[in-house]
Amino acid sequence: MTYCVGLLLDAGIVLLSDTRTNAGVDNISTYRKMFTFEQPGERVISIMTAGSLSVTQTAIARLTEAAEGDGPSILEAASMLEVAEIIGKTLSDVSREVSQKMSGQAQSAKASMIVAGQRRGGAMRLFLIYPEGNFIEATPDTPYMQIGEHKYGKPLIDRVVTPQTSLDDAQKAVLLSMDSTLRSNLSVGMPLDLVVIEADTCRVSISRRIEADDETFHAMSAAWSNALRDAFSAITV
Amino acid sequence: MTYCVGLLLDAGIVLLSDTRTNAGVDNISTYRKMFTFEQPGERVISIMTAGSLSVTQTAIARLTEAAEGDGPSILEAASMLEVAEIIGKTLSDVSREVSQKMSGQAQSAKASMIVAGQRRGGAMRLFLIYPEGNFIEATPDTPYMQIGEHKYGKPLIDRVVTPQTSLDDAQKAVLLSMDSTLRSNLSVGMPLDLVVIEADTCRVSISRRIEADDETFHAMSAAWSNALRDAFSAITV
Repeated sequence: MTYCVGLLLDAGIVLLSDTRTNAGVDNISTYRKMFTFEQPGERVISIMTAGSLSVTQTAIARLTEAAEGDGPSILEAASMLEVAEIIGKTLSDVSREVSQKMSGQAQSAKASMIVAGQRRGGAMRLFLIYPEGNFIEATPDTPYMQIGEHKYGKPLIDRVVTPQTSLDDAQKAVLLSMDSTLRSNLSVGMPLDLVVIEADTCRVSISRRIEADDETFHAMSAAWSNALRDAFSAITV
Repeated sequence: MTYCVGLLLDAGIVLLSDTRTNAGVDNISTYRKMFTFEQPGERVISIMTAGSLSVTQTAIARLTEAAEGDGPSILEAASMLEVAEIIGKTLSDVSREVSQKMSGQAQSAKASMIVAGQRRGGAMRLFLIYPEGNFIEATPDTPYMQIGEHKYGKPLIDRVVTPQTSLDDAQKAVLLSMDSTLRSNLSVGMPLDLVVIEADTCRVSISRRIEADDETFHAMSAAWSNALRDAFSAITV
């Protein structure tokens, strides 16, 4: 499985993905699930993927080829809405093709994506793209999207994230949300990929891989565990 | 859906269930999912249910009839293991019967249960019974069982519960675990049923229904939210 979470805040966009893929529990690999297309200052688009790896890899490869050559490119789309439409169509096309190959096994190959970005003069936007290619968009009422194993890390996001959350706090929130997921579900694993896009810069401000031995992450995780236990002790029934 | 959680501690057993059942999101009802069979001082057995209501109601009704009349009764079983076996067989029998009735709709009716208790002279035990009637048992390494929407409330339990946890802290842990679930998932709802069985008493020590307007629960929930936000603020990345 996977856990990816994206926040759309007044101050910018914060995205975090894990890197674990698995076919069963005995075939675990590390694959990047965060992909960024950027013309710094002009437009920036980040995509996070969940689901069948054969579908997401092919879809990202097609989007990359189109961006470098002919065909409808997300780097030339007139709006973030058009970006979401191109990605949705690519995703559903690939999914249908792969599913047809697998139809003998009565299986289907599905994947979903979170797409976020901004083009110069436009608004920052954050979409969740479903396997069928349709999509929904984050709003101030629900300023986040999750794909994959979303349940473990949702209570924290629900409690602390609003559109006014600062970019520092937002990074903390997604990392702690991921930490809860990592602890409770083996199918989500380190390393992590973090991307921060400051509002109206149309470029990636921070792009960071957090390795399994990252001391800062582990210190934060331990501090959060201790803080949770202290908070738990302080509550009276 | 449902959320039920049971803890097996050195000091006793703590069980908490919600009461929401739904067929779709537009047909929501309140049904008790906590059932206790007790001969105070001799034996106590509590059952929590998740899954198809037609299956769990019939299974509980059959277990109750057997306890009051003929047939293999969980109140006469020689051990908690035999209790789990009787309940497992009843559950799988009912599930198979109901599924046969529904086979025209290509649906199946499944349910699972948590069973906990003690008989005089025996050990306290906590089982999770699968729809097929097989079961697993809690151990000191994993002293809890969950059924239904277990993911939201798992990180807290993972972090704070050990076999040495006191009964007071254990009640707090299951209530806060439930609180996280209630906030993030509409299919789990108030009121709640809480049961505490002190070790070696073979009787229910506390049986409490927590209504939707319970002030203590809401105060605890608010205090936990505040404590979480404070803990979150105190963490540095």
